[in-house]
Amino acid sequence: MTHGKDKAMTTVPITALDLPEADLSEDTRAYFAKCDEKLGMVPNVLRAYAFDETKLRAFTAMYNDLMLAPSGLSKLEREMIAVAVSSVNHCYYCLTAHGAAVRQLSGDPALGEMMVMNYRVADLTAKQKAMLDFAVKLTEAPATIEETDRAALREAGFTDRDIWDIASVAAFFNMSNRVAAAVDMRPNPEYHALSR
Amino acid sequence: MTHGKDKAMTTVPITALDLPEADLSEDTRAYFAKCDEKLGMVPNVLRAYAFDETKLRAFTAMYNDLMLAPSGLSKLEREMIAVAVSSVNHCYYCLTAHGAAVRQLSGDPALGEMMVMNYRVADLTAKQKAMLDFAVKLTEAPATIEETDRAALREAGFTDRDIWDIASVAAFFNMSNRVAAAVDMRPNPEYHALSR
Amino acid sequence: MTHGKDKAMTTVPITALDLPEADLSEDTRAYFAKCDEKLGMVPNVLRAYAFDETKLRAFTAMYNDLMLAPSGLSKLEREMIAVAVSSVNHCYYCLTAHGAAVRQLSGDPALGEMMVMNYRVADLTAKQKAMLDFAVKLTEAPATIEETDRAALREAGFTDRDIWDIASVAAFFNMSNRVAAAVDMRPNPEYHALSR
Amino acid sequence: MTHGKDKAMTTVPITALDLPEADLSEDTRAYFAKCDEKLGMVPNVLRAYAFDETKLRAFTAMYNDLMLAPSGLSKLEREMIAVAVSSVNHCYYCLTAHGAAVRQLSGDPALGEMMVMNYRVADLTAKQKAMLDFAVKLTEAPATIEETDRAALREAGFTDRDIWDIASVAAFFNMSNRVAAAVDMRPNPEYHALSR
Amino acid sequence: MTHGKDKAMTTVPITALDLPEADLSEDTRAYFAKCDEKLGMVPNVLRAYAFDETKLRAFTAMYNDLMLAPSGLSKLEREMIAVAVSSVNHCYYCLTAHGAAVRQLSGDPALGEMMVMNYRVADLTAKQKAMLDFAVKLTEAPATIEETDRAALREAGFTDRDIWDIASVAAFFNMSNRVAAAVDMRPNPEYHALSR
Amino acid sequence: MTHGKDKAMTTVPITALDLPEADLSEDTRAYFAKCDEKLGMVPNVLRAYAFDETKLRAFTAMYNDLMLAPSGLSKLEREMIAVAVSSVNHCYYCLTAHGAAVRQLSGDPALGEMMVMNYRVADLTAKQKAMLDFAVKLTEAPATIEETDRAALREAGFTDRDIWDIASVAAFFNMSNRVAAAVDMRPNPEYHALSR
Repeated sequence: MTHGKDKAMTTVPITALDLPEADLSEDTRAYFAKCDEKLGMVPNVLRAYAFDETKLRAFTAMYNDLMLAPSGLSKLEREMIAVAVSSVNHCYYCLTAHGAAVRQLSGDPALGEMMVMNYRVADLTAKQKAMLDFAVKLTEAPATIEETDRAALREAGFTDRDIWDIASVAAFFNMSNRVAAAVDMRPNPEYHALSR
Repeated sequence: MTHGKDKAMTTVPITALDLPEADLSEDTRAYFAKCDEKLGMVPNVLRAYAFDETKLRAFTAMYNDLMLAPSGLSKLEREMIAVAVSSVNHCYYCLTAHGAAVRQLSGDPALGEMMVMNYRVADLTAKQKAMLDFAVKLTEAPATIEETDRAALREAGFTDRDIWDIASVAAFFNMSNRVAAAVDMRPNPEYHALSR
Repeated sequence: MTHGKDKAMTTVPITALDLPEADLSEDTRAYFAKCDEKLGMVPNVLRAYAFDETKLRAFTAMYNDLMLAPSGLSKLEREMIAVAVSSVNHCYYCLTAHGAAVRQLSGDPALGEMMVMNYRVADLTAKQKAMLDFAVKLTEAPATIEETDRAALREAGFTDRDIWDIASVAAFFNMSNRVAAAVDMRPNPEYHALSR
Repeated sequence: MTHGKDKAMTTVPITALDLPEADLSEDTRAYFAKCDEKLGMVPNVLRAYAFDETKLRAFTAMYNDLMLAPSGLSKLEREMIAVAVSSVNHCYYCLTAHGAAVRQLSGDPALGEMMVMNYRVADLTAKQKAMLDFAVKLTEAPATIEETDRAALREAGFTDRDIWDIASVAAFFNMSNRVAAAVDMRPNPEYHALSR
Repeated sequence: MTHGKDKAMTTVPITALDLPEADLSEDTRAYFAKCDEKLGMVPNVLRAYAFDETKLRAFTAMYNDLMLAPSGLSKLEREMIAVAVSSVNHCYYCLTAHGAAVRQLSGDPALGEMMVMNYRVADLTAKQKAMLDFAVKLTEAPATIEETDRAALREAGFTDRDIWDIASVAAFFNMSNRVAAAVDMRPNPEYHALSR
Repeated sequence: MTHGKDKAMTTVPITALDLPEADLSEDTRAYFAKCDEKLGMVPNVLRAYAFDETKLRAFTAMYNDLMLAPSGLSKLEREMIAVAVSSVNHCYYCLTAHGAAVRQLSGDPALGEMMVMNYRVADLTAKQKAMLDFAVKLTEAPATIEETDRAALREAGFTDRDIWDIASVAAFFNMSNRVAAAVDMRPNPEYHALSR
């Protein structure tokens, strides 16, 4: 992390909250440097959580497991769930960051836009459509999920372990969307032009 | 953890999913034993996550930080947020487990029921009412949160760091409620009679 | 009705309204005494209506017919409808009083909690599930009830007379929930610990 | 009640349910005859309930008390609440019958239509507007009623006794709308042309 | 257009907006005169738009094409869509004017009322029911329309050209309802008594 | 319009409907050629309407007046309304085409994304915020618009003529969103990369 970026961090607010100045540990500085190297930026969500390293580590541990660990769902499919859920919740941060991820992983800019705007217009496999229908129903009306909804996923070809992952990713973004909304979290401007 | 309980674990399903058998590490067995000793049970949500210890650790790390670490919010207040959010989402697991926690921490069974049924009937301080109003709005309509909502919390006496905690707890249960709904997670029966 | 209870009645407000003092007739005093003897309390809803005996009699006549008269629905089933409807409307009074009734009539405390929290998680017969699905749809979206909804009840095994009773009980609690919400009616504290 | 009308009663279905044939008592026949004489018809809701005279009496006792007994609200105001509530619930029976009552009692056909279509366009006193705002909020979102809502009614000039009546009438039509929707109750055709 | 009516136009406000005085062209005066002759009035929506003749012409061109040009849908069916859509949106202007049109074109006053109050109670052909179900879904939840919805219309007997017309009429009244609501547009009083 | 494009028009479906082949008049061909020259494309919505030139002309007349004619609202502000409304309705076509217009007219790609995702996060003037709040309320709950809503616009600095324009643009996109949703209208792919 360069001095220039540290400066930007103090001058451009990432959230609407006035939180304690981050005093980053060596580990976190190294992690952020790796993000910067790999992604060309440190995602603002990480900077937002950095005021408390316990919270940052808990967030990244859960995020990395859900989005990057081996799963019956591809990384693109998990990003599609992230964006379809965030579209229901109209979350500016997550739509911007994960919309870019869908564009990048799919190489299909229009697909990213469809996930942001209305996943129902995308030309998906029946299996992927069932996955997003479940994720969106779980987002909009969690109390109404019944065995028939799980049965529909199994019929579409998902294992019970896949259902856990679909549910967990959809649920995680229902959390993340709300943290971002509550604190007015701002995405890194670099996302906007990515993979257009 | 007794043999009897291990047996119960295989015979009474905790979720509607058929997930891989948990092969618990020494650490997790010790953690569960500590839960059993302290709470008289291993909360089913932990057993549900135990099929994958990375997921279990990520969940417990985030949960323990949010609900137990030092905060401007008391543990009871965090449980009140948990239940008020879960009431909106009609989550059987979380209402049962965290409703019990509100009864226990407050010593006021009626308060637990009010959080489960409709937090608006409880006789709260103006500060606690503002806290729950924010948590419930964030749950029902996250996209509509604006600076005025944060200002209302500051006016009620919360610091920006408190706002982060209110938001994070409310957001976490929006996640948890959805995982529980998606997999039909069942609370330990012991909760029902606790602190009535 | 003991002197002590009369005193409680004036000191603990049952509603948020300042209504004329009840000047109970001999008949009503006898009725309240019978309640006290049978239930160990005079349900607060009766005290709330007692400021006008015509209203009290109209309420009890309708209530007793719907909930206690012979019907194709068992008393427990009628209480289950009452609670499932009150859960949609988040009515503190009715969830408390009728949740206790479900626990008592079923001998199953968890069933009472499920009705309060989310009837969809209960392990019901297909017939009872159809009954509650209809009652909840009638509560949430009465304008959308169509012949197919009645047909589903008939297919589940209900007669047309049963449909009338399901509809009437669900409709009645849509009334009661709203009177209770409008006046902030408070349940007798005794309900909380009943049949746990 | 003429023979011709008895015949009509069997040939034109009043509800979608096949209920036991009404075997009317002398009292009920007299009551129906009085309706016919005063209104030029027996309202179909009475015929619908007539299959069970206990239910009919409970219904008419409550209805007559709420809509006709002395109250701080005029009969027209109570009918306005009835129609504004039924408009939210899109109840064909109640909008038809009580829309006619508003036209008749006010001598203002446009006022009846406004209550049916959208009470917010009517040129009401501030007091009447507050009354209907409360009734409609109680209909749409009963769980969100708080002390501020009652305070608004008091500020508009209503007594606590009036608030009870506003609440009770609004609540009653939330019941009636749902019985009518559930059984597809049909209004007497005579209502359509009344007081146009 | 008589002098008397011109006067009415300035004294009875048609909208809540204070818009520039209409300075009608010869063409528009002729068009209004023709309306007056044919309908016995100049519909207020035309007077409302008349402050800007470009807007008036654009509105009437679209309206006349949609509602009067040849189509697989009868004029009555198009008016039924107009009213069913306006019922969802509780639009006083459109329900009044087009409710009258349904009564007039069908010769069935009750049908007009059913469209205003709840189209689901009308005794329609399966084809007409499918048409209104689509129009109402498109009104309430446009984002959820999928190929299955169009397939249902085709199955009911509609061509793709008919689907365009159903969609266009339903969409047009979603526009009109909102212009009327935004400016508080008032229907001509003559509509109320028409074809009762 | 080149031969290549004509071919594309038949091979890439613009809507899900099988409508009559467009037999374009000389005027329309000239209009489309002008679009192509000015915008680098013929917007698909025009091609979609081209199966019936009366409909096409009515649509373009209204569209051009609303979006391009002199108004107290800038062209950018009208596009912002278009996108904020389309975001509520999750309309893929309009969000894509008009999101591009906001990016282009403002020279601010992030502003376009904010309008698509959640207009509340944009750093707007109080006047523009009031404008979009009104447009979105009119979209979500037209029946609840009251004089206070118009008063808020006047207080923010809008004239009554401006209110007409805000209402008309918001209402128009409530129409357009629904036509696009009903027929699954597809935007020109060129929009995606515009002004990023």
